[in-house]
Amino acid sequence: MKTLLEQAREGLITEAMKAVAKSERVSEKFIREGVAEGRIVILQRPGFSPLGIGKGLRTKVNANIGSSSDAVDEEKEIEKARVAEKYGAHTISDLSMGGNLAYLRVKILEATTVPVSSVPIYQALSECRSFEKMSLSKILKVLRRDVYQGISSIVIHPGFTLETLEKVRKRKRIMGIVSKGGSYTAMWMLTHRRENPFLEVFDEILDIAHSRDVVLSLGNTMRSGSVYDELDEPQMDELHMNTELAEKANERGVQVIIEGLGGHIPAGNIAPSVEKFNKITGQRPLYVAGPLPVDVAVGYDHIAACVGGALAAGAGADYLCYITPAEHLNLPTVEQVKEGVLACRIAAHIGDTVKYGLSEADRNIGLHRRKQDWEGQFFHALDGGEKGRQIRGETVMCKMCGRYCALKIMDQYLGG
Amino acid sequence: MKTLLEQAREGLITEAMKAVAKSERVSEKFIREGVAEGRIVILQRPGFSPLGIGKGLRTKVNANIGSSSDAVDEEKEIEKARVAEKYGAHTISDLSMGGNLAYLRVKILEATTVPVSSVPIYQALSECRSFEKMSLSKILKVLRRDVYQGISSIVIHPGFTLETLEKVRKRKRIMGIVSKGGSYTAMWMLTHRRENPFLEVFDEILDIAHSRDVVLSLGNTMRSGSVYDELDEPQMDELHMNTELAEKANERGVQVIIEGLGGHIPAGNIAPSVEKFNKITGQRPLYVAGPLPVDVAVGYDHIAACVGGALAAGAGADYLCYITPAEHLNLPTVEQVKEGVLACRIAAHIGDTVKYGLSEADRNIGLHRRKQDWEGQFFHALDGGEKGRQIRGETVMCKMCGRYCALKIMDQYLGG
Repeated sequence: MKTLLEQAREGLITEAMKAVAKSERVSEKFIREGVAEGRIVILQRPGFSPLGIGKGLRTKVNANIGSSSDAVDEEKEIEKARVAEKYGAHTISDLSMGGNLAYLRVKILEATTVPVSSVPIYQALSECRSFEKMSLSKILKVLRRDVYQGISSIVIHPGFTLETLEKVRKRKRIMGIVSKGGSYTAMWMLTHRRENPFLEVFDEILDIAHSRDVVLSLGNTMRSGSVYDELDEPQMDELHMNTELAEKANERGVQVIIEGLGGHIPAGNIAPSVEKFNKITGQRPLYVAGPLPVDVAVGYDHIAACVGGALAAGAGADYLCYITPAEHLNLPTVEQVKEGVLACRIAAHIGDTVKYGLSEADRNIGLHRRKQDWEGQFFHALDGGEKGRQIRGETVMCKMCGRYCALKIMDQYLGG
Repeated sequence: MKTLLEQAREGLITEAMKAVAKSERVSEKFIREGVAEGRIVILQRPGFSPLGIGKGLRTKVNANIGSSSDAVDEEKEIEKARVAEKYGAHTISDLSMGGNLAYLRVKILEATTVPVSSVPIYQALSECRSFEKMSLSKILKVLRRDVYQGISSIVIHPGFTLETLEKVRKRKRIMGIVSKGGSYTAMWMLTHRRENPFLEVFDEILDIAHSRDVVLSLGNTMRSGSVYDELDEPQMDELHMNTELAEKANERGVQVIIEGLGGHIPAGNIAPSVEKFNKITGQRPLYVAGPLPVDVAVGYDHIAACVGGALAAGAGADYLCYITPAEHLNLPTVEQVKEGVLACRIAAHIGDTVKYGLSEADRNIGLHRRKQDWEGQFFHALDGGEKGRQIRGETVMCKMCGRYCALKIMDQYLGG
């Protein structure tokens, strides 16, 4: 079967492309060309709506969920998946490493309708329990299983070599390597004294991805973990390498997202870095985690990441990974997943106003606010008005200014 | 007695200037020149540390508290003042309009050590209960009382005329006028068919402010209340008028803060607008409320305002007014005051990294994070680690990644 990318390249507009064009309110031709040229990917999930991510489309939000080796509560993780989708996450990443992984995966897929992604090396490691025992064929086996299970995109970390690791070691970064999947890949390489496993079997991975038209997400191992760690040579090496691999994958008909610039980046560097990255990658879909422009917002990283995400999206990032208040501290609770998703959606929305101009929803909120039509405002609110109703409580009037309301006072003079 | 501005102009470096120089880690000369030229103001509060606000200094955060006509719980408001200071608000505005105002003011001053500001027309209106009954001499009486009571800065709205109001009326903005103090001033003018009261007695106000060296904050009546309402002629008229009045006040030896650009502004317009405003005002201290770059974050406006505030501060705003999650909905609870203050401090901190470069605190968090030294991180966290400790709970290790921690895994190879 031909993949979307192959069909787009042949000039065909498929049902998935039409659906994405419709939901993004752009032309079908725009989608076809974007897919053909690798600027847009379409994540497919059998039985559900396809999702477009990339240049010229609305900024998308991903929520990471999943158990860790030392915190397992399957039902909570399933609930997080449900809550993430409810509050508007466009995709969900199942990063589970503890408990009954097979059960969790099935339940997470059952609980959601959005595309779900996975990082196969997580599960491979948690099943093998050591880098020594984790074989390359095991990693491939998990990856293949995920693809056949209906996962929409697969994260791998092929963009670095032992030489890159040596460069990181010499640089003495404050935070070294903070990517989980990247560090597992690195430790596998160091343990087995072997080059990057994903690079070694890249063609085979392409075949697997091609077989189900699954999107490959090229991971960002070298991202910085402190705002003091600069956009250094290892980061740029990885970006260039991932770009080459993306070209190869696209040639093979496989869609690719490039992960980059996540982590911790000073605010002033975010926009120029995004522009630089987009240029290097040939405007491929850019996936960014955070970024966090400061490190002092411990417990409030979702707010700091909202600033970083808004700056990144405004400058051309296409896909944001949420950060929850529990970042750096713990697995998030269900409530923190909700907070993280909403903060990230605010970032995406702000970014979209910079990329595409203001939205009708913002205009409508103003119009309803002028009339003090509360339900009208809530209808257009990001969370459907849940928090607004909760904060207002049972009062009929707005207690904020009470009878001395600026709006009411001026309304007669200014006209309705 | 001579004011700080007069002494600075004469080349004198006072104790207050020395204290500000020390806390801001700049030279005393820098402070003296800034004060002399109106780029820096020093808010004084008898018995407590002076606070510098303006160009070249750290971005400051204000928290609005106070009862409304229809929501009065004096003890809660006093608690809000305490909590706002505890979580790092540099100033507090008492905007009370309901209950025992005299009692509230005294208690708020007792509960805090930071400079407190007031908007005299609020209290005048709540005491007179109608625009008809509120005389100009009453407004002045309240203003004088506030100044003599130890209020550090007074907000007035002198920067518009009946002609400006007519322009607003003709423009048919979505949200008209959303400034409370501004709308009261406007309604007074319309009710009494008289020009701006603060303009009429501006010289007298200068005398009063001069007598206690209280800072005048020139209010921002014309700010927009919807991201769809543009930076229009009324806003620019007010800015030019406030700048002229600031020049006059500075000549008289009175320090001035210019309020501007608060409200709702599309993200892409914030930085250029701040630069434009600073140019027009001659780099006077710029006070910004929010701004909110989107309207859809109902119930989460503190997060949207963090993005707007970070952009504004990074571009040269000097003083941010916090926005709480209850903005547009209700008076904030004590907890929401805390959330608002912290979100605004994140904005100020991000802005400062753009203006002045990264902070040692951010570096230290990274260094402690690398070592998984939790208390070390918390010590440098914006809230002193309260939220971080709460999220981590009783666990010794970080549950986020459990035994498969990227940092620990890589640490041996990358070196300590």
